[in-house]
Amino acid sequence: MSGHFGDQAPIRFAGREATEELAFRHYDPDALVLGKRMEDHLRFAVCYWHNFVWPGTDPFGGQTFERPWFGDSMEQARAKADAAFEMFELLGVPFFCFHDRDIAPEGATLAESNTNVRAIAELFARKMETARVRLLWGTANLFSNRRYMAGAATNPDPDVFAYAAAQVKNVLEVTHELGGANYVLWGGREGYETLLNTDLKRELQQLGRFLTLVVDHKHKIGFPGTILIEPKPQEPTKHQYDFDVAAVYGLLKTYGLENEVKVNIEVGHAVLAGHSFEHELALASALGILGSCDINRNDYQSGWDTDQFPNDVPEVALALYYILRAGGFTTGGLNFDAKLRRQSIEPDDLLHAHVGGMDVCARALKAAAAMLEEGSLERFVAERYAGWDAPEARKMLDGTYDLAAIADYVERAGVQPTPRSGRQEYLENLVNRFC
Amino acid sequence: MSGHFGDQAPIRFAGREATEELAFRHYDPDALVLGKRMEDHLRFAVCYWHNFVWPGTDPFGGQTFERPWFGDSMEQARAKADAAFEMFELLGVPFFCFHDRDIAPEGATLAESNTNVRAIAELFARKMETARVRLLWGTANLFSNRRYMAGAATNPDPDVFAYAAAQVKNVLEVTHELGGANYVLWGGREGYETLLNTDLKRELQQLGRFLTLVVDHKHKIGFPGTILIEPKPQEPTKHQYDFDVAAVYGLLKTYGLENEVKVNIEVGHAVLAGHSFEHELALASALGILGSCDINRNDYQSGWDTDQFPNDVPEVALALYYILRAGGFTTGGLNFDAKLRRQSIEPDDLLHAHVGGMDVCARALKAAAAMLEEGSLERFVAERYAGWDAPEARKMLDGTYDLAAIADYVERAGVQPTPRSGRQEYLENLVNRFC
Amino acid sequence: MSGHFGDQAPIRFAGREATEELAFRHYDPDALVLGKRMEDHLRFAVCYWHNFVWPGTDPFGGQTFERPWFGDSMEQARAKADAAFEMFELLGVPFFCFHDRDIAPEGATLAESNTNVRAIAELFARKMETARVRLLWGTANLFSNRRYMAGAATNPDPDVFAYAAAQVKNVLEVTHELGGANYVLWGGREGYETLLNTDLKRELQQLGRFLTLVVDHKHKIGFPGTILIEPKPQEPTKHQYDFDVAAVYGLLKTYGLENEVKVNIEVGHAVLAGHSFEHELALASALGILGSCDINRNDYQSGWDTDQFPNDVPEVALALYYILRAGGFTTGGLNFDAKLRRQSIEPDDLLHAHVGGMDVCARALKAAAAMLEEGSLERFVAERYAGWDAPEARKMLDGTYDLAAIADYVERAGVQPTPRSGRQEYLENLVNRFC
Amino acid sequence: MSGHFGDQAPIRFAGREATEELAFRHYDPDALVLGKRMEDHLRFAVCYWHNFVWPGTDPFGGQTFERPWFGDSMEQARAKADAAFEMFELLGVPFFCFHDRDIAPEGATLAESNTNVRAIAELFARKMETARVRLLWGTANLFSNRRYMAGAATNPDPDVFAYAAAQVKNVLEVTHELGGANYVLWGGREGYETLLNTDLKRELQQLGRFLTLVVDHKHKIGFPGTILIEPKPQEPTKHQYDFDVAAVYGLLKTYGLENEVKVNIEVGHAVLAGHSFEHELALASALGILGSCDINRNDYQSGWDTDQFPNDVPEVALALYYILRAGGFTTGGLNFDAKLRRQSIEPDDLLHAHVGGMDVCARALKAAAAMLEEGSLERFVAERYAGWDAPEARKMLDGTYDLAAIADYVERAGVQPTPRSGRQEYLENLVNRFC
Repeated sequence: MSGHFGDQAPIRFAGREATEELAFRHYDPDALVLGKRMEDHLRFAVCYWHNFVWPGTDPFGGQTFERPWFGDSMEQARAKADAAFEMFELLGVPFFCFHDRDIAPEGATLAESNTNVRAIAELFARKMETARVRLLWGTANLFSNRRYMAGAATNPDPDVFAYAAAQVKNVLEVTHELGGANYVLWGGREGYETLLNTDLKRELQQLGRFLTLVVDHKHKIGFPGTILIEPKPQEPTKHQYDFDVAAVYGLLKTYGLENEVKVNIEVGHAVLAGHSFEHELALASALGILGSCDINRNDYQSGWDTDQFPNDVPEVALALYYILRAGGFTTGGLNFDAKLRRQSIEPDDLLHAHVGGMDVCARALKAAAAMLEEGSLERFVAERYAGWDAPEARKMLDGTYDLAAIADYVERAGVQPTPRSGRQEYLENLVNRFC
Repeated sequence: MSGHFGDQAPIRFAGREATEELAFRHYDPDALVLGKRMEDHLRFAVCYWHNFVWPGTDPFGGQTFERPWFGDSMEQARAKADAAFEMFELLGVPFFCFHDRDIAPEGATLAESNTNVRAIAELFARKMETARVRLLWGTANLFSNRRYMAGAATNPDPDVFAYAAAQVKNVLEVTHELGGANYVLWGGREGYETLLNTDLKRELQQLGRFLTLVVDHKHKIGFPGTILIEPKPQEPTKHQYDFDVAAVYGLLKTYGLENEVKVNIEVGHAVLAGHSFEHELALASALGILGSCDINRNDYQSGWDTDQFPNDVPEVALALYYILRAGGFTTGGLNFDAKLRRQSIEPDDLLHAHVGGMDVCARALKAAAAMLEEGSLERFVAERYAGWDAPEARKMLDGTYDLAAIADYVERAGVQPTPRSGRQEYLENLVNRFC
Repeated sequence: MSGHFGDQAPIRFAGREATEELAFRHYDPDALVLGKRMEDHLRFAVCYWHNFVWPGTDPFGGQTFERPWFGDSMEQARAKADAAFEMFELLGVPFFCFHDRDIAPEGATLAESNTNVRAIAELFARKMETARVRLLWGTANLFSNRRYMAGAATNPDPDVFAYAAAQVKNVLEVTHELGGANYVLWGGREGYETLLNTDLKRELQQLGRFLTLVVDHKHKIGFPGTILIEPKPQEPTKHQYDFDVAAVYGLLKTYGLENEVKVNIEVGHAVLAGHSFEHELALASALGILGSCDINRNDYQSGWDTDQFPNDVPEVALALYYILRAGGFTTGGLNFDAKLRRQSIEPDDLLHAHVGGMDVCARALKAAAAMLEEGSLERFVAERYAGWDAPEARKMLDGTYDLAAIADYVERAGVQPTPRSGRQEYLENLVNRFC
Repeated sequence: MSGHFGDQAPIRFAGREATEELAFRHYDPDALVLGKRMEDHLRFAVCYWHNFVWPGTDPFGGQTFERPWFGDSMEQARAKADAAFEMFELLGVPFFCFHDRDIAPEGATLAESNTNVRAIAELFARKMETARVRLLWGTANLFSNRRYMAGAATNPDPDVFAYAAAQVKNVLEVTHELGGANYVLWGGREGYETLLNTDLKRELQQLGRFLTLVVDHKHKIGFPGTILIEPKPQEPTKHQYDFDVAAVYGLLKTYGLENEVKVNIEVGHAVLAGHSFEHELALASALGILGSCDINRNDYQSGWDTDQFPNDVPEVALALYYILRAGGFTTGGLNFDAKLRRQSIEPDDLLHAHVGGMDVCARALKAAAAMLEEGSLERFVAERYAGWDAPEARKMLDGTYDLAAIADYVERAGVQPTPRSGRQEYLENLVNRFC
């Protein structure tokens, strides 16, 4: 083998007692969970950006990774694609994801950049003929180049809006041609650095227009995938308009897009917004906009985006419980939008990171499925709200009773509510039995 | 004088060089700012809860304040009202606010509680005949009693929903009868402690129904005031459904209430939600739901609600700039929903706290008005977005151009956006010239 | 049975497949782990305060718990002791902990209060003759009463210092008489609300003096236990002088007490100070001041002290790994300084909470022990620093080389360090194999 | 003028009513404040790093600034020095600061790098003959190069320790030769990414040894300046050993360096550690280790280091109050370790940022001086602790009384402390009169 990962053989499921370091101890793609293959539940994706592009920099330090494909030429872009597909195959993941600027160098003009993207996309198409891997989603990088420093859709300069729109058109079409299951919009610069130079109302309208343009084009070209927005509260901006699931839902309702666009929820972004991951999932599910997940955790002691691989089985189990209850993924999946720590400079660190993350998710899936099958948790919740099936209760909810009628009922029936234990500790123990 | 504050005379404007401690150095109610009386701009309110009810407890300590009216009798409630109106007059504030449970003791039944509230409301009405003070808003306390421990509108038990609805009916009517300018809903328990025992979707529907009931009753009784929701991210709950302005707007849109309900934004709640105060104001203004403010700051180094009096002129000036730009308050105002530090045990600490807070807001108002009059800030923003007046730009926003047309335009015109400085430091300096 | 917990039988180890709700699934006191009984490793303690005194209040809500012993009489204090010992026996815990004000009502004078404490301590002594439970630590409540609102040792008023000292004397002696293994000082009010009224330098000196007085008295009365300080960054104060382990160590060094006083580390306090729990443990261990633990977790999405029961096995496992590596507890133990959620109003919620917490710690202990026995983690770390055994390296550390000599060596040897992978993801995976 | 800033004339004090944008409205270097020139109080420094090296990147975006000197050649380094000294003169600041890697390109070996640094230092020396600017401090960059990814002094590899030591030796000597007033150590990588691969105890010992080596060399070469440590809690590491002032003090005490090393406190680092800026100043002053300040603020809504120019007069005024009370700076000063927002791409944005920051500090100095001269704040604090002058109080503090003697006194004198108001709101109002 002459690959980036040397003579590493494809990584296989070997069970809990595996003796080799690089083996799946829990992730067995063909194992059935709730009657469905584990692979089809989890729909893992590997991302291009963190694995093959990011050089290991942080705000106080330079490049630590030394990858032979680093550089700006098309030849290096092809070498990068070779390494990427080598890793996809070694891991046996069903999906990958990319930004346009990850896969091909930026040209002097947008046309030239688009040509570069398309050339690599064709290379992908050829590789995908023999590889098992498919495209979970594509997206346009509307945040790295200095032209986007003040936003893309929400830029004060309409030329930037136009440039971004044209760039999205290209990547949306490429994504369609590659059979992508979704198209993602991450609004990393759709926010502001200071309100002092910002017309908030105008920028929100620009954002709404941009989303509508993308949705319309999706229908025009017949792209069957889902359009996804990835909420994040801040970083790089001081405030990002797609702050969290609730904020995105408000945006979508305002522009009549709540049936057209769903969310791609990232664990770490939820945490940075002051929410638990399961909160964002449960809320998106309740609102009907749960699409896909970036399964990278955030350090709970950091105030910035640490994009680490998942390693907490109970946390992921609870998340998967809500995903399973929502019916599981349709077009979505679990994307490792995670990066190595910058000291993890060996090629096989990439493999260890993904293998560990996939095993964590597999254990969590089994736990979540067991919780669902056993049923105590769902039963507890159902019983807690059972009073709402009573006739008087229904009348309050369905509009039969107005405020005065309810007040009459309280007086007439001498309503004196009896507090009942919320049983949180018992329920937490219950969850732990499965994790 | 035999009052709670001894022989203290009403506090007067005495200018920056005032020698007495208790004087307004900046707040001059009749001074004209942008052609309107300072009092009419700021519409200060004093709250009943923190000043006359809270005993100085914290999670680790008991009562520190010794007020003669502390207790559960109606006689003590009347003594409390005497002290409250004494303070309103000493401060010369135009407004006050209350929760039903602040002003009168809870009875054995809701009917008895309502009777107590009404009795004190009648005492208020008599006092208001001679006092200048009016009612900024009333509200029902749906969070202190153990019956509400799992929520009011969002309780799993419909009896609690009913009880809360009946309680709100009473306070809404009392507020109407007292000529209140607004009615506030703070959903302190409308959230959850753990998702494990919670049906999020159902609770959101209950909340939507409850809001609709309140709005319908407002119209039925002809209450001309505004219904306000006060966003807060968490505390006491782990997650509160009215997390921030964006979340409230999404809720209102879902239930078709975005033209019926506005927000009461609290400085400290904005901070706890990860926003600046001016962000929440600017967003509410852009969405058309800016109603009123609780002007209490939060300690930036604390993760809980500290409810302190405002003391940062530049922060309040920026806030008032956005309020003035939105046209100023209509029914809303600036409510000091702030509490003394628990070591501030002397009666006159209450006066110092309010006088200081009012002076900070007055200085900030003058600064905000000067910024507006001078105009550089507004001009800078207008010029930054001026490119959107060009014909091609308009076509992108108004729907004339679809994504393909925009991409054509980029190619045809050879669009290469030129980054322009955002000038944040210059703008921050500019603001400082006025503060 | 006529007890508070009805006819509940003592809770027994029944293994993972236990069918009854209230059984230990993992905690088997007599099971040997690394050659020592599980009970002797974990040294669980139940606290008096949260379980038997706290009424379920929060900053926005009143009492939710209804305990028959709530009240201020000595008779109620004795009934409370009965319920407490009933629970200690049901859980089979080896230890309990108390504050003086938890166990007996405050009297009109300190002498009267001390008499009350002593009377209940005598009741404890009689109960301890037949019960298995022993005292892990006692402590004086120097924070609830309004006399302590501005601090105890660090109060501007020397009378408060004196009162606190006299109160500590009593509880330290009572703790000694009851055979307590430690005495704890939690400086909840030893900090400030605002620097504006605070003489920081003076207060630090007062604190140093107070600690010295306590240590001297310990030796005078021959108390063989350990004096412990419990770090916390803030809440109730804005800043607490014993912020974290590093701050406590600095204090101890300043007053020459680093060999006399150790720390009682609380999970949640570590988190509130911006640290992981294992960080505080590892640091205390490195500094030689690791004493005991409060094993209550904090909600990672809350900025205040949530004092929840532990439920995250991997987090506790890592903590126990560092405790085992430090040689395990000597006089210390794992105290559940945790409280029920205020909606958990049933008596058996107290049992569920502790059973769940004890099982989490038992699983974590087995995982930590396995990590240690397997040894890969320790070997990895040892190898990573192995270069320091080389002669040149030793000379740098032992003072043989000064800066110039080191610079010579770099030049002479042409030192060009070779970065080596930190292997974080591999190590995280490794830990997960045991959890 | 053919400089980087075009034909900009040196910026002059023009008073509050200045009409030109680039003028000092408050900073008048020669104005006397408390009998000392404003310039001598504030001792402003401009940093090399943020102004002349940082390209405007953030974790999600590339270069935005276009400076003609960007590049790796010595010629570009000299052009950079020209621009830097041009700016120092335009601003009229008395000091500048640098890291070795800011001023000269890294060579293939340390010797070559040191030669480059020395060559530019000689250029500085020539420029300083005619310019007024002096060196506040120099420092070695021990964090950007990948060799330092796992720490410098605390690296597991002794070769890195050696390399870092040799690098510091060079910069310390260069700093001495340039007449630097201080030498700074910022331990950006002196911490860990994960405890799993870290020997905390060993790393703390390495750090102690490193500090001792530097201090010894300072004395050996006769450097009269102060050695400063700059505390920061985390970022880039997960945990940094010099977390805050308290942690640094503990370190210094452990290695007997508390009289040799002081702290350089950065506003933003204080905030990230959960402290107010004035807390860190007051604590350092109480401990006798207050050295110098980096006066860059942090966004209170961000969890990462935003390094913004100061713009809040009341915050800086309180800080300067504590600095003045500590006697003002000796070798230290106020260094603008602040960076432009990355959208501020024009050369004159650099000038606006510094002019604004200097004016904020000048206003704050005048306010702080007025607070001190008026004296109410100091008097209030002195009176609050006046009880400690009583004979019994002194005996408690000086060791005359032991715990038993104090308890006797409490009983004998019937001590019943009387709570007194902490007057926080009054004091906050008082401060606002001066700001």
